[in-house]
Amino acid sequence: MSTHRHNVDLSKAYRLLNHGPTVLVSAAHSGQRNIMAAAWAMPLDFAPPKVAVVLDKATWTRQLLEASGEFALHVPTVAQVDITQALGSSSGLKISEEHGIDKFAAYGLQTFDGNLVGAPLLEGCAAWLECRLLPEPAIQNSYDLFLGEVVAAHADSRVFREGRWDFTGHDSLRTIHHVAGGHFIVDGDVIDAKPLKL
Amino acid sequence: MSTHRHNVDLSKAYRLLNHGPTVLVSAAHSGQRNIMAAAWAMPLDFAPPKVAVVLDKATWTRQLLEASGEFALHVPTVAQVDITQALGSSSGLKISEEHGIDKFAAYGLQTFDGNLVGAPLLEGCAAWLECRLLPEPAIQNSYDLFLGEVVAAHADSRVFREGRWDFTGHDSLRTIHHVAGGHFIVDGDVIDAKPLKL
Repeated sequence: MSTHRHNVDLSKAYRLLNHGPTVLVSAAHSGQRNIMAAAWAMPLDFAPPKVAVVLDKATWTRQLLEASGEFALHVPTVAQVDITQALGSSSGLKISEEHGIDKFAAYGLQTFDGNLVGAPLLEGCAAWLECRLLPEPAIQNSYDLFLGEVVAAHADSRVFREGRWDFTGHDSLRTIHHVAGGHFIVDGDVIDAKPLKL
Repeated sequence: MSTHRHNVDLSKAYRLLNHGPTVLVSAAHSGQRNIMAAAWAMPLDFAPPKVAVVLDKATWTRQLLEASGEFALHVPTVAQVDITQALGSSSGLKISEEHGIDKFAAYGLQTFDGNLVGAPLLEGCAAWLECRLLPEPAIQNSYDLFLGEVVAAHADSRVFREGRWDFTGHDSLRTIHHVAGGHFIVDGDVIDAKPLKL
């Protein structure tokens, strides 16, 4: 278990996703669990914090999420780029309507338990958001779009402290942004906007 | 007019937003126009390409978008970080229910016309997506969440070519990711994931 993991105040949870990183999505139901990558995720509200994420119909994780009404978003790091890509491209792992391959087991991934949600959390990420599904069947079915309320959030204190990302001195913990085909952009420099006069 | 602007094939349009940059949103209706910043935007589908963006109820741009059924997303660059922040924080510019301040005029911004959509496009961005609203009143009202179909897309050929971002040699055109309070992360290095065996 990481000794750097700390709880993030829910009022700051949106900042874990505000810069648009690629995420991992996990879910568990009835003794089964899975995890996948998703580049299409974003915050949806500040308080209570909400998120939106697109999950293809073919994914086993989506079925577990729909059955349990819970999921977890993870913000993976550049050190996890290979497993992020693997979790995003290893589709078709569903064996039957009721059973799929557990990618945690298939790739030998270490997990820990969330505070409030049953979805397993992958060790080594930069941040984690435990979410409860906000059921919106029409947009789930029409657009593969899932909304959730963030009920607990955690981050690695080496890179997210006092509500701010700061990767200085921790290049391997920088977060990643998928472009296409396993090609990622890594977080770079930080810049502060200067006020403009109207 | 930028001589570097080129059309992006719609099949590659999702890649303009796939890495999660902060965007600008413009809309026009009945002789009025406006533009705002939004950190919460993402692709929603590949073909036809669709997008999702969160727009606060208080914004004048949202009213113009709802009235016209059209909008444009822009991907601003690090050279535009000050104006991006200004366009994201200059709220309350609505004068009445039917009229707001035109931030293009207020900040002296240069625009050009889109191919298919009436929303004005801001010069100097890295990419532009012309969108038609996919009306979903329930989620617009409940979640401030707007969905759109991308009907035309453009990018600066110096940094987006053959369906890929490549900022090498063009640091001022790197795209930006808002964290909070005018604090942005700039696109950094590129990394390619290596295949993992199951």
